[in-house]
Amino acid sequence: MGPEVLRWSTDNCSIGRALDVVGEKWSFLVLRELFLGVRRFDDLRVRTAIPRQVLSDRLARMVEAGLLRREPYREPGARVRHEYRLTAKGLDLYPVLVALRHWGDTHLADPEGPSAVFVHRGCDEPVGLVLRCAAGHELGPREVGGVPGPGAVLREGA
Amino acid sequence: MGPEVLRWSTDNCSIGRALDVVGEKWSFLVLRELFLGVRRFDDLRVRTAIPRQVLSDRLARMVEAGLLRREPYREPGARVRHEYRLTAKGLDLYPVLVALRHWGDTHLADPEGPSAVFVHRGCDEPVGLVLRCAAGHELGPREVGGVPGPGAVLREGA
Repeated sequence: MGPEVLRWSTDNCSIGRALDVVGEKWSFLVLRELFLGVRRFDDLRVRTAIPRQVLSDRLARMVEAGLLRREPYREPGARVRHEYRLTAKGLDLYPVLVALRHWGDTHLADPEGPSAVFVHRGCDEPVGLVLRCAAGHELGPREVGGVPGPGAVLREGA
Repeated sequence: MGPEVLRWSTDNCSIGRALDVVGEKWSFLVLRELFLGVRRFDDLRVRTAIPRQVLSDRLARMVEAGLLRREPYREPGARVRHEYRLTAKGLDLYPVLVALRHWGDTHLADPEGPSAVFVHRGCDEPVGLVLRCAAGHELGPREVGGVPGPGAVLREGA
Protein backbone atom coordinates (compact mmCIF):
# COMPACT_ATOMS: atom_id res chain seq x y z
CA MET A 1 0.00 0.00 0.00
CA GLY A 2 2.92 2.38 0.72
CA PRO A 3 1.91 6.02 1.19
CA GLU A 4 -1.24 5.24 -0.83
CA VAL A 5 -2.48 3.68 2.39
CA LEU A 6 -2.84 7.18 3.85
CA ARG A 7 -5.91 7.77 1.69
CA TRP A 8 -7.87 5.10 3.53
CA SER A 9 -9.71 5.25 6.79
CA THR A 10 -8.71 2.94 9.65
CA ASP A 11 -12.08 3.38 11.38
CA ASN A 12 -13.41 0.02 10.24
CA CYS A 13 -10.12 -1.90 10.42
CA SER A 14 -10.60 -5.48 11.60
CA ILE A 15 -7.32 -5.42 13.48
CA GLY A 16 -8.43 -2.36 15.44
CA ARG A 17 -11.77 -3.99 16.17
CA ALA A 18 -10.13 -7.24 17.22
CA LEU A 19 -7.90 -5.26 19.59
CA ASP A 20 -10.92 -3.48 21.04
CA VAL A 21 -12.01 -6.95 22.20
CA VAL A 22 -8.69 -8.63 23.06
CA GLY A 23 -6.14 -5.81 23.01
CA GLU A 24 -5.10 -6.22 26.59
CA LYS A 25 -2.45 -8.44 28.04
CA TRP A 26 -4.95 -9.96 30.49
CA SER A 27 -7.26 -11.16 27.76
CA PHE A 28 -4.55 -13.21 26.10
CA LEU A 29 -3.38 -14.70 29.38
CA VAL A 30 -6.93 -15.83 30.11
CA LEU A 31 -7.26 -17.26 26.61
CA ARG A 32 -3.96 -19.09 27.01
CA GLU A 33 -5.24 -20.80 30.15
CA LEU A 34 -8.57 -21.75 28.62
CA PHE A 35 -6.78 -23.24 25.63
CA LEU A 36 -4.68 -25.27 28.08
CA GLY A 37 -7.82 -26.58 29.80
CA VAL A 38 -7.82 -24.33 32.89
CA ARG A 39 -11.45 -23.33 33.42
CA ARG A 40 -12.09 -22.40 37.02
CA PHE A 41 -11.81 -18.96 38.51
CA ASP A 42 -9.36 -19.82 41.27
CA ASP A 43 -7.13 -21.79 38.91
CA LEU A 44 -7.19 -18.95 36.39
CA ARG A 45 -6.20 -16.56 39.15
CA VAL A 46 -3.24 -18.69 40.26
CA ARG A 47 -2.02 -19.24 36.73
CA THR A 48 -2.35 -15.68 35.48
CA ALA A 49 -1.65 -13.73 38.70
CA ILE A 50 -4.43 -11.35 37.67
CA PRO A 51 -5.99 -9.62 40.71
CA ARG A 52 -9.37 -11.12 41.64
CA GLN A 53 -11.45 -8.09 40.74
CA VAL A 54 -9.70 -7.49 37.42
CA LEU A 55 -10.02 -11.14 36.45
CA SER A 56 -13.70 -11.16 37.35
CA ASP A 57 -14.26 -8.04 35.25
CA ARG A 58 -12.28 -9.38 32.27
CA LEU A 59 -14.09 -12.72 32.31
CA ALA A 60 -17.45 -10.93 32.34
CA ARG A 61 -16.36 -8.79 29.38
CA MET A 62 -15.15 -11.83 27.46
CA VAL A 63 -18.47 -13.58 28.09
CA GLU A 64 -20.28 -10.47 26.89
CA ALA A 65 -18.10 -10.33 23.77
CA GLY A 66 -19.08 -13.94 23.03
CA LEU A 67 -15.59 -15.41 23.49
CA LEU A 68 -16.48 -17.47 26.56
CA ARG A 69 -19.52 -19.07 28.11
CA ARG A 70 -20.17 -19.87 31.76
CA GLU A 71 -21.05 -23.44 32.61
CA PRO A 72 -22.29 -24.55 36.05
CA TYR A 73 -20.52 -27.30 37.97
CA ARG A 74 -20.79 -28.60 41.50
CA GLU A 75 -18.17 -30.22 43.70
CA PRO A 76 -19.58 -32.72 46.25
CA GLY A 77 -20.87 -30.82 49.26
CA ALA A 78 -20.24 -27.39 47.73
CA ARG A 79 -22.54 -24.85 46.16
CA VAL A 80 -22.92 -24.55 42.40
CA ARG A 81 -20.04 -22.68 40.79
CA HIS A 82 -19.25 -21.78 37.20
CA GLU A 83 -16.41 -22.59 34.94
CA TYR A 84 -15.48 -20.89 31.69
CA ARG A 85 -15.39 -22.52 28.28
CA LEU A 86 -14.32 -21.13 24.93
CA THR A 87 -17.04 -20.54 22.38
CA ALA A 88 -16.36 -21.09 18.68
CA LYS A 89 -15.58 -17.37 18.42
CA GLY A 90 -13.07 -17.64 21.27
CA LEU A 91 -11.56 -20.80 19.84
CA ASP A 92 -10.95 -18.96 16.58
CA LEU A 93 -8.34 -16.87 18.43
CA TYR A 94 -6.06 -19.89 18.73
CA PRO A 95 -3.85 -18.89 15.79
CA VAL A 96 -3.16 -15.53 17.48
CA LEU A 97 -1.85 -17.33 20.55
CA VAL A 98 0.16 -19.80 18.50
CA ALA A 99 1.71 -16.86 16.64
CA LEU A 100 2.49 -15.02 19.90
CA ARG A 101 4.04 -18.13 21.41
CA HIS A 102 6.11 -18.78 18.35
CA TRP A 103 7.45 -15.24 18.42
CA GLY A 104 8.11 -15.40 22.16
CA ASP A 105 9.84 -18.75 21.84
CA THR A 106 12.06 -17.43 19.07
CA HIS A 107 13.05 -14.15 20.68
CA LEU A 108 12.44 -14.33 24.42
CA ALA A 109 12.71 -17.94 25.68
CA ASP A 110 15.23 -19.03 28.31
CA PRO A 111 18.35 -20.87 27.09
CA GLU A 112 16.75 -24.16 28.21
CA GLY A 113 13.96 -23.60 25.72
CA PRO A 114 10.25 -22.75 25.90
CA SER A 115 8.18 -23.56 28.97
CA ALA A 116 5.40 -25.09 26.90
CA VAL A 117 4.91 -26.37 23.38
CA PHE A 118 1.79 -26.64 21.25
CA VAL A 119 1.52 -30.11 19.77
CA HIS A 120 -0.81 -31.98 17.45
CA ARG A 121 -2.95 -34.15 19.76
CA GLY A 122 -2.95 -36.91 17.17
CA CYS A 123 0.79 -37.35 16.71
CA ASP A 124 2.49 -35.21 19.39
CA GLU A 125 4.46 -33.25 16.81
CA PRO A 126 4.96 -29.52 17.50
CA VAL A 127 2.56 -27.18 15.75
CA GLY A 128 3.59 -24.11 13.78
CA LEU A 129 1.88 -21.49 11.66
CA VAL A 130 2.29 -21.12 7.94
CA LEU A 131 1.40 -18.05 5.87
CA ARG A 132 -0.15 -19.28 2.64
CA CYS A 133 -1.95 -17.56 -0.17
CA ALA A 134 -5.10 -18.86 -1.83
CA ALA A 135 -3.01 -20.05 -4.79
CA GLY A 136 -1.10 -22.33 -2.39
CA HIS A 137 2.20 -20.43 -2.13
CA GLU A 138 3.84 -20.50 1.31
CA LEU A 139 5.21 -17.08 2.14
CA GLY A 140 7.61 -15.14 4.32
CA PRO A 141 6.36 -11.85 5.80
CA ARG A 142 8.19 -9.74 3.20
CA GLU A 143 6.09 -11.36 0.48
CA VAL A 144 2.82 -10.21 2.01
CA GLY A 145 1.28 -6.81 1.38
CA GLY A 146 -1.91 -5.02 2.40
CA VAL A 147 -4.43 -3.77 -0.18
CA PRO A 148 -7.79 -2.04 0.32
CA GLY A 149 -10.59 -4.57 0.77
CA PRO A 150 -14.28 -4.47 -0.23
CA GLY A 151 -15.11 -2.47 2.94
CA ALA A 152 -12.39 0.15 2.43
CA VAL A 153 -13.51 3.73 3.09
CA LEU A 154 -11.61 6.88 2.14
CA ARG A 155 -10.32 8.88 5.06
CA GLU A 156 -12.06 12.20 5.56
CA GLY A 157 -9.89 15.01 4.24
CA ALA A 158 -7.57 12.61 2.43
CA MET B 1 -2.45 -30.43 29.71
CA GLY B 2 -5.82 -30.30 31.53
CA PRO B 3 -5.55 -29.75 35.28
CA GLU B 4 -2.03 -31.21 35.07
CA VAL B 5 -1.08 -27.77 33.74
CA LEU B 6 -1.59 -26.37 37.25
CA ARG B 7 1.66 -27.98 38.36
CA TRP B 8 3.69 -25.77 36.08
CA SER B 9 4.90 -22.23 36.52
CA THR B 10 3.83 -19.54 34.09
CA ASP B 11 6.73 -17.26 35.09
CA ASN B 12 8.78 -18.10 32.01
CA CYS B 13 5.89 -18.44 29.55
CA SER B 14 6.75 -17.12 26.11
CA ILE B 15 3.23 -15.81 25.59
CA GLY B 16 3.47 -13.78 28.79
CA ARG B 17 6.86 -12.44 27.73
CA ALA B 18 5.64 -11.60 24.25
CA LEU B 19 2.73 -9.70 25.81
CA ASP B 20 5.12 -7.80 28.06
CA VAL B 21 6.55 -6.39 24.84
CA VAL B 22 3.47 -6.08 22.62
CA GLY B 23 0.52 -6.64 24.95
CA GLU B 24 -1.03 -3.27 24.34
CA LYS B 25 -3.46 -2.23 21.70
CA TRP B 26 -1.21 0.65 20.63
CA SER B 27 1.71 -1.63 19.86
CA PHE B 28 -0.28 -3.65 17.38
CA LEU B 29 -1.73 -0.59 15.71
CA VAL B 30 1.79 0.76 15.18
CA LEU B 31 2.94 -2.59 13.86
CA ARG B 32 -0.02 -2.71 11.49
CA GLU B 33 0.99 0.64 10.00
CA LEU B 34 4.64 -0.28 9.66
CA PHE B 35 3.66 -3.49 7.90
CA LEU B 36 1.55 -1.39 5.54
CA GLY B 37 4.52 0.88 4.77
CA VAL B 38 3.61 3.87 6.97
CA ARG B 39 6.88 4.98 8.57
CA ARG B 40 6.72 8.62 9.58
CA PHE B 41 5.62 9.95 12.92
CA ASP B 42 2.92 12.28 11.63
CA ASP B 43 1.50 9.64 9.31
CA LEU B 44 1.49 7.09 12.12
CA ARG B 45 -0.34 9.57 14.30
CA VAL B 46 -3.04 10.22 11.70
CA ARG B 47 -3.55 6.55 10.95
CA THR B 48 -3.61 5.28 14.53
CA ALA B 49 -5.17 8.28 16.31
CA ILE B 50 -2.70 7.68 19.14
CA PRO B 51 -2.01 10.90 21.10
CA ARG B 52 1.38 12.42 20.22
CA GLN B 53 3.04 11.80 23.56
CA VAL B 54 1.80 8.22 23.85
CA LEU B 55 2.90 7.42 20.32
CA SER B 56 6.32 8.92 20.93
CA ASP B 57 6.69 6.87 24.10
CA ARG B 58 5.50 3.63 22.46
CA LEU B 59 7.82 4.07 19.49
CA ALA B 60 10.78 4.61 21.84
CA ARG B 61 9.87 1.46 23.76
CA MET B 62 9.54 -0.55 20.56
CA VAL B 63 12.94 0.69 19.40
CA GLU B 64 14.39 -0.28 22.78
CA ALA B 65 12.78 -3.74 22.56
CA GLY B 66 14.47 -4.21 19.18
CA LEU B 67 11.25 -4.30 17.13
CA LEU B 68 11.93 -1.06 15.23
CA ARG B 69 14.88 1.02 14.18
CA ARG B 70 15.02 4.74 13.49
CA GLU B 71 16.33 5.82 10.11
CA PRO B 72 17.16 9.44 9.23
CA TYR B 73 15.58 11.10 6.19
CA ARG B 74 15.47 14.67 4.92
CA GLU B 75 12.84 16.40 2.86
CA PRO B 76 14.21 19.22 0.62
CA GLY B 77 14.61 22.36 2.73
CA ALA B 78 13.65 20.68 6.01
CA ARG B 79 15.72 19.46 8.92
CA VAL B 80 16.67 15.80 9.30
CA ARG B 81 13.83 13.67 10.65
CA HIS B 82 13.54 9.98 11.42
CA GLU B 83 11.30 7.31 10.13
CA TYR B 84 10.66 3.90 11.66
CA ARG B 85 11.44 0.57 10.08
CA LEU B 86 10.72 -2.95 11.27
CA THR B 87 13.73 -5.02 12.32
CA ALA B 88 13.79 -8.77 11.67
CA LYS B 89 12.44 -9.25 15.20
CA GLY B 90 9.57 -6.87 14.48
CA LEU B 91 8.88 -8.44 11.13
CA ASP B 92 8.52 -11.80 12.84
CA LEU B 93 5.33 -10.48 14.45
CA TYR B 94 3.56 -10.50 11.08
CA PRO B 95 1.75 -13.79 11.71
CA VAL B 96 0.23 -12.33 14.89
CA LEU B 97 -1.26 -9.48 12.86
CA VAL B 98 -2.45 -11.79 10.11
CA ALA B 99 -4.13 -13.95 12.75
CA LEU B 100 -5.75 -10.91 14.41
CA ARG B 101 -6.99 -9.61 11.07
CA HIS B 102 -8.37 -12.97 10.10
CA TRP B 103 -10.29 -13.20 13.37
CA GLY B 104 -11.53 -9.63 13.08
CA ASP B 105 -12.58 -10.17 9.46
CA THR B 106 -14.48 -13.30 10.41
CA HIS B 107 -16.29 -11.96 13.45
CA LEU B 108 -16.31 -8.16 13.34
CA ALA B 109 -16.16 -6.89 9.75
CA ASP B 110 -18.85 -4.67 8.23
CA PRO B 111 -21.35 -6.35 5.89
CA GLU B 112 -19.44 -4.88 2.91
CA GLY B 113 -16.40 -6.90 3.95
CA PRO B 114 -13.00 -6.12 5.42
CA SER B 115 -11.37 -2.72 4.98
CA ALA B 116 -8.06 -4.26 3.94
CA VAL B 117 -6.79 -7.61 2.78
CA PHE B 118 -3.36 -9.19 3.06
CA VAL B 119 -2.26 -10.52 -0.31
CA HIS B 120 0.71 -12.37 -1.73
CA ARG B 121 2.77 -9.70 -3.51
CA GLY B 122 3.68 -12.20 -6.20
CA CYS B 123 0.19 -13.26 -7.29
CA ASP B 124 -2.28 -10.94 -5.47
CA GLU B 125 -4.09 -13.86 -3.88
CA PRO B 126 -5.33 -13.35 -0.28
CA VAL B 127 -3.09 -14.72 2.45
CA GLY B 128 -4.27 -16.91 5.30
CA LEU B 129 -2.70 -18.78 8.17
CA VAL B 130 -2.52 -22.52 8.50
CA LEU B 131 -1.83 -24.48 11.70
CA ARG B 132 0.42 -27.38 10.76
CA CYS B 133 2.37 -29.88 12.80
CA ALA B 134 5.93 -30.97 12.06
CA ALA B 135 4.59 -34.20 10.55
CA GLY B 136 2.71 -32.11 7.95
CA HIS B 137 -0.85 -32.44 9.26
CA GLU B 138 -3.01 -29.35 8.91
CA LEU B 139 -5.06 -28.83 12.03
CA GLY B 140 -8.07 -27.14 13.53
CA PRO B 141 -7.66 -25.53 16.96
CA ARG B 142 -9.36 -28.45 18.74
CA GLU B 143 -6.59 -30.74 17.53
CA VAL B 144 -3.85 -28.71 19.20
CA GLY B 145 -2.82 -29.15 22.83
CA GLY B 146 -0.18 -27.65 25.12
CA VAL B 147 2.50 -29.78 26.77
CA PRO B 148 5.38 -28.77 29.05
CA GLY B 149 8.46 -27.78 27.05
CA PRO B 150 12.20 -28.15 27.78
CA GLY B 151 12.14 -24.95 29.86
CA ALA B 152 9.12 -25.97 31.97
CA VAL B 153 9.50 -25.18 35.69
CA LEU B 154 7.26 -26.54 38.48
CA ARG B 155 5.19 -23.94 40.21
CA GLU B 156 6.22 -23.21 43.79
CA GLY B 157 3.85 -24.93 46.19
CA ALA B 158 2.34 -27.08 43.42
